Amino acid sequence: MAPDYHKTVSKNVRNYIISLQKKRSREEHRVFVIEGDKLIREFLASDFSVVSLIAKPEFISSLQPELLEKAGEVIPVRYEELKKISSMVTPHNAIAVIRMPDIKFSTARIFRSLSLALDTIQDPGNLGTIIRAAAWFGIRNIICTENCVDVYNPKVIQATMGAFINVNVFYTDLVVSLKKARENNIPVYGAMLEGTEIYGQQPDKRGIVLLGNESKGISGNLLSFVSHRIVIPRIKGQITGIESLNVGMAASIIMYEFTRKKN
Amino acid sequence: MAPDYHKTVSKNVRNYIISLQKKRSREEHRVFVIEGDKLIREFLASDFSVVSLIAKPEFISSLQPELLEKAGEVIPVRYEELKKISSMVTPHNAIAVIRMPDIKFSTARIFRSLSLALDTIQDPGNLGTIIRAAAWFGIRNIICTENCVDVYNPKVIQATMGAFINVNVFYTDLVVSLKKARENNIPVYGAMLEGTEIYGQQPDKRGIVLLGNESKGISGNLLSFVSHRIVIPRIKGQITGIESLNVGMAASIIMYEFTRKKN
Repeated sequence: MAPDYHKTVSKNVRNYIISLQKKRSREEHRVFVIEGDKLIREFLASDFSVVSLIAKPEFISSLQPELLEKAGEVIPVRYEELKKISSMVTPHNAIAVIRMPDIKFSTARIFRSLSLALDTIQDPGNLGTIIRAAAWFGIRNIICTENCVDVYNPKVIQATMGAFINVNVFYTDLVVSLKKARENNIPVYGAMLEGTEIYGQQPDKRGIVLLGNESKGISGNLLSFVSHRIVIPRIKGQITGIESLNVGMAASIIMYEFTRKKN
Repeated sequence: MAPDYHKTVSKNVRNYIISLQKKRSREEHRVFVIEGDKLIREFLASDFSVVSLIAKPEFISSLQPELLEKAGEVIPVRYEELKKISSMVTPHNAIAVIRMPDIKFSTARIFRSLSLALDTIQDPGNLGTIIRAAAWFGIRNIICTENCVDVYNPKVIQATMGAFINVNVFYTDLVVSLKKARENNIPVYGAMLEGTEIYGQQPDKRGIVLLGNESKGISGNLLSFVSHRIVIPRIKGQITGIESLNVGMAASIIMYEFTRKKN
């Protein structure tokens, strides 16, 4: 590939992409950034709209034409340019700007099958791995309190490892949604430290699994909507130093147990 | 507490503690650093030897005398001093230097009950949460390849959330250990993408669960020692973008399933 094939990313574009590391800018422009060859290939093959693809020419020319034409704008750059706009210490070969999907939130969608509800999850890695496990177990919808970490945070997207494409994440008032769930006889399973062991539980085909904040658990104002308090059994006897499982692990174990009858 | 109760951490001590963020220095001195009020209380109450406690006077005076006397050296400092030696952006009120435990590795110990074997786990958060889940499910011993992330890495310790105290982590040649396991008829369960679904499997009381690297899985030289290839069932049908579960989640689901009969 001839060197004159490279372009330079203008200062405006550079500042724009860097600004998208911040939630406010993402919300304003209704776009987010993804990084990495594999992830970008998957987004190009998906229903997402790829606004810009900024990548090394080698990456661009490795794409099948039908994938490449799905990118709105294609900017071939040197690796040094990618370094300037990447959120990573060691960037991959490609960065893309993606339009946020416009999926309408409705409780009917959430109530149709088994869904997750997340209360004040703070750690990007936790949200990312929960989305990854949800995709694995076929759970399509997650509702989050407004103060959960943003799903378009680059660290969340990185941790989902592509599973992001398969799961809808909605930010909404959980008081309203969970109240409505109970009014519609949808069970709300609260992951707690005391309750019924999940072994062999046969949950409804429909239902909401509610998981609380990493250190504080489920908020008081949501607790009253829990219809089933569930626990992951731990080793018997008093052991110091372990008060709970990591929320991502708890979520994945519950999804594993609750989907075993259905898959 | 009078301000003259504060001491200043000498430059030597400061450099020493900062140096312990590096594995080489930890190995040389056979100590490691922990941070955080709760974690330090737990270590003081455990069998670990606390060499130095560097903390705000308020924390020190909050300790019961029988806990405090277990610390070899106690240095009351201002918060500004803690900031200089902490590995965290926002340090807690206390930092402690802990002697590495001197627990002799033997395969007999590993073969006595259900244990984990980790092959080339790179992410500190993954190792930390695996230890946390192991403690939850009563698994006491983990063997790791020498190229796994160091268990005394501050990020690993942080992610264990205290569970660290309950689980022995040994670095050893897994080829030797797994070969010996098979010679002794100890089953080796390899977490794979193809194999027998783990639902309802009744594993031996003794056994080793082998988990591979985050992106490459189990190394070729260890695969031949796997007696049971196991998989965590995923949703049926072809879904793009998910190739595997996070290794920490896979580990916790397998531990959950394999200990359900025993707890």
